[in-house]
Amino acid sequence: MAKIHGWKWVVGLASSILLNLFLILNIYLRRSTELTWTREAAEQAEAVAAFSCSGHGHAFLDGLAAEGKPACECNSCYGGSHCSEFSPDCPADVNSGDPLFLEPFWMEHAMSSAVMLAGWHRMSYRMDDGSTISTELTKHIFQLHAMVGNAVTKGRFIIFGAGSTQLLHAAVHALSQQGSPWPSRVVATIPFYPIYEFQTDLFNSKDFKFQGDTSLWKNASSTNSSMNIIEFVTSPNNPDGRLTKPVLKGPSVKTIHDHAYYWPHFTAIPAPADEDVMIFTISKITGHAGSRFGWALIKDEAVYQKILTYLGLNTIGVSHDTQLRALKLLKVVLKGGGREIFEFGQKTMKSRWERLNKILSASRRFSIQKLEYHNCSYFQKVTEASPAYAWLKCEREEDLDCTAVLRAAGIIGREGTLYHAESRYVRLSLIKGEDDVDLLLQKMDALVSKEEGAQNM
Amino acid sequence: MAKIHGWKWVVGLASSILLNLFLILNIYLRRSTELTWTREAAEQAEAVAAFSCSGHGHAFLDGLAAEGKPACECNSCYGGSHCSEFSPDCPADVNSGDPLFLEPFWMEHAMSSAVMLAGWHRMSYRMDDGSTISTELTKHIFQLHAMVGNAVTKGRFIIFGAGSTQLLHAAVHALSQQGSPWPSRVVATIPFYPIYEFQTDLFNSKDFKFQGDTSLWKNASSTNSSMNIIEFVTSPNNPDGRLTKPVLKGPSVKTIHDHAYYWPHFTAIPAPADEDVMIFTISKITGHAGSRFGWALIKDEAVYQKILTYLGLNTIGVSHDTQLRALKLLKVVLKGGGREIFEFGQKTMKSRWERLNKILSASRRFSIQKLEYHNCSYFQKVTEASPAYAWLKCEREEDLDCTAVLRAAGIIGREGTLYHAESRYVRLSLIKGEDDVDLLLQKMDALVSKEEGAQNM
Repeated sequence: MAKIHGWKWVVGLASSILLNLFLILNIYLRRSTELTWTREAAEQAEAVAAFSCSGHGHAFLDGLAAEGKPACECNSCYGGSHCSEFSPDCPADVNSGDPLFLEPFWMEHAMSSAVMLAGWHRMSYRMDDGSTISTELTKHIFQLHAMVGNAVTKGRFIIFGAGSTQLLHAAVHALSQQGSPWPSRVVATIPFYPIYEFQTDLFNSKDFKFQGDTSLWKNASSTNSSMNIIEFVTSPNNPDGRLTKPVLKGPSVKTIHDHAYYWPHFTAIPAPADEDVMIFTISKITGHAGSRFGWALIKDEAVYQKILTYLGLNTIGVSHDTQLRALKLLKVVLKGGGREIFEFGQKTMKSRWERLNKILSASRRFSIQKLEYHNCSYFQKVTEASPAYAWLKCEREEDLDCTAVLRAAGIIGREGTLYHAESRYVRLSLIKGEDDVDLLLQKMDALVSKEEGAQNM
Repeated sequence: MAKIHGWKWVVGLASSILLNLFLILNIYLRRSTELTWTREAAEQAEAVAAFSCSGHGHAFLDGLAAEGKPACECNSCYGGSHCSEFSPDCPADVNSGDPLFLEPFWMEHAMSSAVMLAGWHRMSYRMDDGSTISTELTKHIFQLHAMVGNAVTKGRFIIFGAGSTQLLHAAVHALSQQGSPWPSRVVATIPFYPIYEFQTDLFNSKDFKFQGDTSLWKNASSTNSSMNIIEFVTSPNNPDGRLTKPVLKGPSVKTIHDHAYYWPHFTAIPAPADEDVMIFTISKITGHAGSRFGWALIKDEAVYQKILTYLGLNTIGVSHDTQLRALKLLKVVLKGGGREIFEFGQKTMKSRWERLNKILSASRRFSIQKLEYHNCSYFQKVTEASPAYAWLKCEREEDLDCTAVLRAAGIIGREGTLYHAESRYVRLSLIKGEDDVDLLLQKMDALVSKEEGAQNM
């Protein structure tokens, strides 16, 4: 081989060696932040999340997988291995209060909302302080109420439940007069959330009895001081979204304030709620209905202690796994003063409500509730209506069974009679996923178009 | 610059370039499997897990952290920022049934037991099939029973609850005669788990009433066919670890079989349980008491439907987060036929039992229950006793309050009177963490050594 000019080689080799060193350093630094025991679980989660369900379904880690592969679980009316097949004759199912309108928000905030659960995470029944509730989570819930301005937490005890569902009945138990010869009367104002009645009946206790609508007890409660009454006040109300106040007053009237929907997604927040028993659920804030997590804010220590005993004997507190997840989710909610999630939620709900209103404005056959505008202290302006549910009425005399009328048009709503209202009322859920609500609006549009005398818009 | 022999340079440069190509490829391949949205959560979990608590505590992701740093939560009797400070005068707290003996197992199986929860994981109330329970998890639970041979699952309905606690009462509710003028009598055999009585009393239902020990009803139940009785049968029994059978027989006797401890950790498994209502909890299998997850196997469809209604109105099912975690944990349990976890559990429990027996063999003042040996179909041999609890008796006439006697010696047990036994009985938990049990054995050894006439071993 011929002799060559060395300097070119020296420069070349030196550069190459420098590049070698750089790359080695790069790999070394990378390895030092390499994940160990969490890597496999993280990879599994990413693989499942990357599986395409065409925007009309999801693959979940615990989904049914053939040969260990992820499998799509499709939204209603979609099918096929990737949820790409739409069934045109499929009805719009807007029966349940499944809060899936927030699912896209969490997919967009995948990184900040992910949680890694270690195998040994909080195996004990109890937290470090002997309670079953997480101090950090409590702190974040108090911050959330302060930020949104929807509840006074000062001087309140907090207690966690498996959704507000468990807490509603725990509160009835705690407020009833135990051992009294007269069971406490549990009441609510029509139209009301049916679970209040179903739960009270289910437990068939000697201490309380469901006694229907508040109107029946209006006079009795204020004059008969020995008549122990427990009134459920749902504000905003389920099904009709109205902000409500207690109807009954009197020395022996106790009130359970169900504030599941008292969040900027669904209503203006005129002022912080400042009641003795207030119940909230993560289901209608972050949309995590499946996590079964709610809380109650309680003023009176004796009532708090009774609820604590109830929950201790009913379920020994709330899953620690869910408490960890709720904490992570609330951290995302709290970011930037909550603007991101509440603006997303309110915008989504308002747009759905407007689209439905627009369709129904052409109809004489169907009407939905009118909602007042209120000043929202959170958004610092008067906000338009954005309720969780439409409370639809069939106006024609012959349309007595409104649920059946809608059903024939491919819309599955929830019977008004469940809420003790007339059968010409139906609740339509506007908080479900985009696919269900889109289909509802399509079917409703078609139904209204067929109306004789429908106004052309 | 001098001319040099080219071939050495060519080889050097070529090698260096090859190395560069290799390193670049390495980095490229690594990047293609790089984690994206899960990385942050995985790193957070690893950082917290790496925080040293000297083997006498844990840092948890939702622990109290100053300035965002992990913080140790120390086992009883340990303190300091890294749980390295032992308080010598601290009592041994063996009161609760916290199953922390399995914590080391999960720390050793960190990789296979970790779970990554995506922010949008199963937000709906319901699974794909409309139920609230995971099909995959059900499948794995059936596999677990088949593998261990402790329960017949064929022809059974399964239902999940927030721990067995919720299911125990749901079963009472479902088995009671609703609307009967005579409330069902709920009974158990002394000594029995106090929750049965506390729950039945708490709900104060018109449909059932706690009526104490089975012995009171032995004759009545077999002769009076209209007397509806619900008997709790705990096998192995809590507190004394004995395998038990129903005491009452008769046309109107229904039985709830609480099999929380019917696992190879705590007892031989002579044969699969084949009863109408069988209740299990993950708490005593994997040790995850804080996850609140249990299940019931139910033969009769009507009873199953009643429990389903109860759970639907009580909590609307069980946290989906916990169901995902339980699935991951059971996959680890099932690996290699369950040998790893059940051998670890049984070995740990047996060794604790032997150590306590050895100490007490020198005592005339204290005795603990004798347990029969049984053939274990799972281990395919006669296994020695390894109960979850010691059921200790103070033998001296003057030691009427045995709890106080132990308390004075720095041992916190659970009063026998809670189990409707005499006050000279105390339950000592052997399933707690190593630190608590070590301390118990030390304190017990010291107490026995002080006995007059204690035999020197």
